[in-house]
Amino acid sequence: MSSPERRVELRSDTFTLPSREMLEAMVVAELGDDGYGEDPTVNELEAMAAHVIGKDAACFMPSGTMGNLSAIMTHCPRGAKVIMGAESDIYLYEAGGASVCGGVVYHPVPNRADGTMDLGLIAAAFPASPGDPQYALPALLCLENPQNHRGGKVLPASYLREVTTFARENGLTVHLDGSRIFNAALSARVPAAQLAGYADSVMFCLSKGLGAPVGSIVAGTAAFVRDVRRLRKMLGGGMRQAGVLAAAGIVALANRDRLADDHVSARRLADGLAAMSELAVERVEPGINMVFFRVATSELDTHAFIAAAQARGVRLAELGHNRIRAVTHNGVTADDIGYALDVIGSILADAR
Amino acid sequence: MSSPERRVELRSDTFTLPSREMLEAMVVAELGDDGYGEDPTVNELEAMAAHVIGKDAACFMPSGTMGNLSAIMTHCPRGAKVIMGAESDIYLYEAGGASVCGGVVYHPVPNRADGTMDLGLIAAAFPASPGDPQYALPALLCLENPQNHRGGKVLPASYLREVTTFARENGLTVHLDGSRIFNAALSARVPAAQLAGYADSVMFCLSKGLGAPVGSIVAGTAAFVRDVRRLRKMLGGGMRQAGVLAAAGIVALANRDRLADDHVSARRLADGLAAMSELAVERVEPGINMVFFRVATSELDTHAFIAAAQARGVRLAELGHNRIRAVTHNGVTADDIGYALDVIGSILADAR
Amino acid sequence: MSSPERRVELRSDTFTLPSREMLEAMVVAELGDDGYGEDPTVNELEAMAAHVIGKDAACFMPSGTMGNLSAIMTHCPRGAKVIMGAESDIYLYEAGGASVCGGVVYHPVPNRADGTMDLGLIAAAFPASPGDPQYALPALLCLENPQNHRGGKVLPASYLREVTTFARENGLTVHLDGSRIFNAALSARVPAAQLAGYADSVMFCLSKGLGAPVGSIVAGTAAFVRDVRRLRKMLGGGMRQAGVLAAAGIVALANRDRLADDHVSARRLADGLAAMSELAVERVEPGINMVFFRVATSELDTHAFIAAAQARGVRLAELGHNRIRAVTHNGVTADDIGYALDVIGSILADAR
Amino acid sequence: MSSPERRVELRSDTFTLPSREMLEAMVVAELGDDGYGEDPTVNELEAMAAHVIGKDAACFMPSGTMGNLSAIMTHCPRGAKVIMGAESDIYLYEAGGASVCGGVVYHPVPNRADGTMDLGLIAAAFPASPGDPQYALPALLCLENPQNHRGGKVLPASYLREVTTFARENGLTVHLDGSRIFNAALSARVPAAQLAGYADSVMFCLSKGLGAPVGSIVAGTAAFVRDVRRLRKMLGGGMRQAGVLAAAGIVALANRDRLADDHVSARRLADGLAAMSELAVERVEPGINMVFFRVATSELDTHAFIAAAQARGVRLAELGHNRIRAVTHNGVTADDIGYALDVIGSILADAR
Ligand SMILES: [Ca+2]
Ligand SMILES: [Ca+2]
Ligand SMILES: [Ca+2]
Ligand SMILES: [Ca+2]
Ligand SMILES: [Ca+2]
Ligand SMILES: [Ca+2]
Repeated sequence: MSSPERRVELRSDTFTLPSREMLEAMVVAELGDDGYGEDPTVNELEAMAAHVIGKDAACFMPSGTMGNLSAIMTHCPRGAKVIMGAESDIYLYEAGGASVCGGVVYHPVPNRADGTMDLGLIAAAFPASPGDPQYALPALLCLENPQNHRGGKVLPASYLREVTTFARENGLTVHLDGSRIFNAALSARVPAAQLAGYADSVMFCLSKGLGAPVGSIVAGTAAFVRDVRRLRKMLGGGMRQAGVLAAAGIVALANRDRLADDHVSARRLADGLAAMSELAVERVEPGINMVFFRVATSELDTHAFIAAAQARGVRLAELGHNRIRAVTHNGVTADDIGYALDVIGSILADAR
Repeated sequence: MSSPERRVELRSDTFTLPSREMLEAMVVAELGDDGYGEDPTVNELEAMAAHVIGKDAACFMPSGTMGNLSAIMTHCPRGAKVIMGAESDIYLYEAGGASVCGGVVYHPVPNRADGTMDLGLIAAAFPASPGDPQYALPALLCLENPQNHRGGKVLPASYLREVTTFARENGLTVHLDGSRIFNAALSARVPAAQLAGYADSVMFCLSKGLGAPVGSIVAGTAAFVRDVRRLRKMLGGGMRQAGVLAAAGIVALANRDRLADDHVSARRLADGLAAMSELAVERVEPGINMVFFRVATSELDTHAFIAAAQARGVRLAELGHNRIRAVTHNGVTADDIGYALDVIGSILADAR
Repeated sequence: MSSPERRVELRSDTFTLPSREMLEAMVVAELGDDGYGEDPTVNELEAMAAHVIGKDAACFMPSGTMGNLSAIMTHCPRGAKVIMGAESDIYLYEAGGASVCGGVVYHPVPNRADGTMDLGLIAAAFPASPGDPQYALPALLCLENPQNHRGGKVLPASYLREVTTFARENGLTVHLDGSRIFNAALSARVPAAQLAGYADSVMFCLSKGLGAPVGSIVAGTAAFVRDVRRLRKMLGGGMRQAGVLAAAGIVALANRDRLADDHVSARRLADGLAAMSELAVERVEPGINMVFFRVATSELDTHAFIAAAQARGVRLAELGHNRIRAVTHNGVTADDIGYALDVIGSILADAR
Repeated sequence: MSSPERRVELRSDTFTLPSREMLEAMVVAELGDDGYGEDPTVNELEAMAAHVIGKDAACFMPSGTMGNLSAIMTHCPRGAKVIMGAESDIYLYEAGGASVCGGVVYHPVPNRADGTMDLGLIAAAFPASPGDPQYALPALLCLENPQNHRGGKVLPASYLREVTTFARENGLTVHLDGSRIFNAALSARVPAAQLAGYADSVMFCLSKGLGAPVGSIVAGTAAFVRDVRRLRKMLGGGMRQAGVLAAAGIVALANRDRLADDHVSARRLADGLAAMSELAVERVEPGINMVFFRVATSELDTHAFIAAAQARGVRLAELGHNRIRAVTHNGVTADDIGYALDVIGSILADAR
C-alpha cells in the first residue's frame, strides 16, 4: 500500500505537534538543572500552571500517567482503596501502576453514559464496619473531567458539587484526572480553576490539545506537591534541563483558548458523520474535541472501514467493541475535516 | 442486657469449636519444628490433603487469606491482573493483600445471582492489543466454589468446564477459592477432587465447617507449592510445632462427610424461615450450610431484629444492605434450629 | 545410617516441644472466633503479654517474622528506610518481606562483636539534605536483644540508652526484635519490660525457649497494635480458635523464669567444650542459652564433625563460615549435656 | 550577597546546557507520538544508541533513575535481592525505588577505594541453603562504571572479567549503571560497547557530560527492552513528541568524544589544586571529568570554603563528610579552570 498523499490524524490529540512559537521558545529558554530546582523556565511554568488552575503549587511531569500515579500514591497509604470509574483512563490505560508502585487497591465503579458514577455505588465501597481488618478502606476518589471513554463528556456542575460533597463527608480526598480540563472548561464556559476547585488535586496534560511536545502538570497544596515531587524523583521523572519542554508548555498554556477551534471542528465532523445513514454517531452536547461513532451497516466491518480510511490518510482509532473515536486538534484544519468526510463518505458509498 | 442462657451461633461456621477427638489428637500428636520441615503431623496432613483434593502437593496455612494471597502471588508477577468476582471473598474480605504485598491489580467482574461470572465480561479484561504497554495483562482467574456472597451457590459443572476452558484458551491460570469446597462437593454429589480438578490450584479451610481450630490448605503442583511455601515464610505464616494444629486438621479432613448434617440443618432452618410471612428467604437448590434472608416487613428494622435475636442467644450476621446470613455447623444441633426458629418467630409476632 | 538411640537437639530452641501443662491447658481452653475478637484465651494472653512486657497493648501472631513485618510496616510508610543490623535476624532470615510487602528500604549497618551498631554508621544513613528527593529517609531503627548472630549477646544498658536517645533525637521510631527477650532479661537481671521500655514496639516469641508450640507477640501503644492487627489480617495471620495456641502461650509466659535453667546448661556446655583443645569457643559473659564454637583443628572438617555428632544423636547447626551453634532449651537435660560432651569429645579423639 | 559576575559550575555535569547544534536539531526534528512508537527521531536515537553500546535494542528514558529502576524491575522478580555497591548511585541516590515499586531487596556491598566490590562479600549474599524459604535470593548484580562516589573510578578490565564471570557462574544477571560510560571508555581507551559487553543490560545518560538537556538510554536484548518499555509506561516515562529530546540526544551521542576535553580540564584542575598545600586531592589515574578533594587545614571549614567560592561564582558540591567534588563539562572552559584555581587559591590565602 503506497503512502497516502494527505494525512488527517484523528486517532488522538496526543499527536499534536509543537507550534513554531513553541519551538522558538524552546530554543531561547533560559535553562538550569531542575534536579536542583534551578531551571527558571520550569519554575515559571509551574508557577503559571498553579495560577491558571487555581492551586497553591504545581509540578511538571513527563506524562499524565506519572502525574496521576504520584498523586494517588501521595494521597493513599499502602492498602487504601482508590475509587474511580471503571471506564476511566486511570483504570484502563495506566498499567495498574498504583497497585504495583503504591500497593493501592483499585475499586472501579461503573461510569454511566454521562460519565458520572452513581453515588450509591461509591458508598458501597465503604464497609459497614471500617474497624474490621478484613476490609481495605477507601481513601481517594478519582474523577475524570472530561470523561474520555464515555464520549468526552463534561461532568455537570451539579454532579461535581454533589459527588465532592459526598467525598468530603465520607473522608475521601478527591483527585481530578483533568488531562483535557481546558476542553471541559471551554465547553462548560467556566474557568478551569473552577472545575479544579472541586478537587484536592488535579492533573492536566500539556501534550494533548494544548499541543506541547511533552509534559503534564500536577497541582494541589504546597505540601501535596512537595510529596509528589519526591515521588517523581523515585519514579524516574526528574529531568535535568526540562526547561526546553517547559518553554513549550508555557506557550501551550498561554494559548489554551485555541482549543475552542477544535470543538468547532469536532462539531462539524460530528454533523457530517451524522448525515451518513450507515454511521451511528454519539452526539454529545456540549461536546469537546471528540466524536465517537460506529459503523451501523452490516455491509462493512469496523476494521475494514478503519483500514480503508487509513489507506487514504485518515487515521481513526478503535476503542474496543467496534467503537470508533475521532479527535480534533491543532493539526486538523477545516479543510482536513472536509477531506475526512469525503473519504469516509466514499468508503461507505463503495460498500453499498 | 443479661447474657442469654442458650446460645445458637449462626453468624459463621468459622465459630466451630474443635471436637473432643480433635483435642485428643492434638495432645498426642508427634511434633517437630515445621520451620525445618520436621513436623511429622504437618507432613502427614499435607500429604493427606493433597491426596483428598487430588493435587500433587499441599501446604498448611494459618488462614485461608494467606492461602489465597500466596497462591495469587505465586501465579501472578507484579503488575498482572487477577480477575475475580466482585462479590468474591478474595475481593471483598481479604484487605487488598494482593495489591499491597504482590503489586497485583484486582479486576473484579460482577457475580451473577448463581455465583457465576459472564464470560464476555471476563474476556473484556483482555486488551485488544496486549503488546501496548498501557495495559495491565490478565494472568489469573479466581473462582469461588461454593460462592459465599451470592448465597452459598455451588457452581454448575457445565459452567466450571466452560469457564476453565475459556481460561486455558486465553492463557489464564485458574485458582479456586474453595474455602468450603467439601460443602460444594457434598451438595453436588461429586468428589472434591473433581471440583478442584478444574483449577490449577485450590485453597480450602479446615477451620470452617470442618471444625478445626486453625488452618487452611493450599494445593497444586509440586513447583507451585514450593513457591507458595517460600511466600508463606515471608508473609510470616511459618509456624514451629504446627503439628498441634495439623492433628486437628487431620481429624477434620477425615470426618468431612459430616458436613452433610449441616446441610440438613440449613434446609430445616430455611424451611422454617420461609414459612414466616415477614421474611424473604433466598432459596438455593441444592444448598450448602447457609441461609440468606431479609426482614420483609416495615414493622421491623433489620438491626433491631438481629439485636432482638441476639438478646435471646441467636446470633445472626448482617452481610450488607439488610441481608442476613445464618450458617449451620457442628455446634448447631437440631434442637438449636428449633430454638432459633422459635425465637425468630416470636420476635416477628411481637412486632406485628 | 541407623537412627541413634538418644537425641540431643541443639540446633535451635525453636525445637522446644510443648510441656504437659501446656497440652492440658490447650485442651481445656475456652475458645471463640478470634476473627471477631471473641476468643477469650487469646484476649487473656494478649492482656498478660502487654502487662509482662510493659506496653499498652499486644497482638498474638503466628510467627515472629509476621510480628516484625507488621511492626515495620506499621512504623514505616512506603519508601522509608529501616535501619537494622547487617547480622540481624530481620535482615538475614525474614526473606526481605518489608521490601516486598511494605515497599520499605533496608539499610543494614554492621553489627560489632558485642552485637551493637556504631552510632556514626547509623547517623550516616541520614542524608545531609533530607529535602532532596533523591534520598530515601530513615524512619525506623530495629534493635535485636539478645543479638543472635553475634553470639547471643545481651546489649548493654548503657548502649540501649545511648542508641535510643540518638534515635529519638533524630526522629527514628525504635522497634525491638526481642524474640528471646526473656533470656536477655534474666541474663541482665532486669525485668523484660525494662528492656522493652527503650523501644516503641517489641516482638517476642513464645515458641523458642518459652516452649509454646506456635506464636509470637507484638506489643506497643494501643494505636500501634490496632494497625498491626489490621496488617495481620491482610498478611493472613488472622486465626480462628487461636485460643488453643494462646493457652500454651499463657503457660509459657507464666513459666518464663525457667529459661534460667537453659542458661546454666549452656554454661556447662560452653565450659565442657572450652576444655577441648580442638575447639575454639566464643565465651559470652553473661550468656544466654547459646554456645558458638568452631572446630579449630585441621584434622577435622566442620561438616564432617557435625555429621558425626548427628550420627550419634547430637544435632548442631552451622550458621555459615564453619561457625557452629548449640542452643539449650527445655528439651535438653543436664544428662543430655553430659552425653553431648561425651559424643563431641570422642569424635575429636577419633580424629586425632 | 551580590550575584558574582562570572560563574563556573563545577557541582555536576548534569548542569550541561544543550549546544547550539542540539537546539537546532530539536527545532527541525521530525516528530510523532512515541506513545504509538511513531516518533521517527526517538526511533533513530534508540537504534543509534543500541549500535553504539553494542546491544540489540535500546529505550529512551526521561532519566537515568528510571533507566536503572526499570532494568532492576525487569531482571528481578519481587522478593529477589539486587546486589550493588554501598556507595553506588543506585543505592544512595535513587530513593529506594526498587523496593517501593518492585518489592526488590537491596543488598549493599562495600565499595573499595578503587570502586570495586570484594567477590567474597558478593558471595556472602548467597545463603548456604537457597531452598530455605527464610532467605531472599540474589538475582542481579549492579555494577557502576565509572564509579562516581569513589572518585570517578574506572573499573579495571580484569575486575570486570572476574566479577561478571563470578556472576554468570552463580546465576546473577548483570546490569551496568554506566551513566558516564563514555567517560570510562575514553579513559580506558576502549569502545564503550566493550565495557557494556560485560553486562546483560546497561544504562547511560545523555544529559550529563554528553550535554543533552534530558534523557537516558537503557539497552539490552530485544526481550529485555520490550519489558523495560512496558515498565516505562507504567512508571510514567512514556512521552509523546519525545523526538524533541531525542534530537538533542543524537547530537550528544555523535559528539561523545568531546568528553576527552573534560578529562583534560579535570586533570588541569586536579594539578592546580594538588599544588595548594591546604588541600588534599584524591588523585585518580586515569581519571574522568571529576576531582575530589578536602580542605586539609584547620583554618578553614569546608562549608565556609564552599560558600566563599560560591560568592565568587565557583560552584562546588559537598558529597558528605567534608568531601568536595568538582566536575568538568562542556560549560567549563580552560579559562574557567584558571579562574576557579585563582578563586580557590585566594580563599586559602585569605584563611592563612
Ligand atoms: Ca503533543
Ligand atoms: Ca473453627
Ligand atoms: Ca476467604
Ligand atoms: Ca517450640
Ligand atoms: Ca544536561
Ligand atoms: Ca544514577
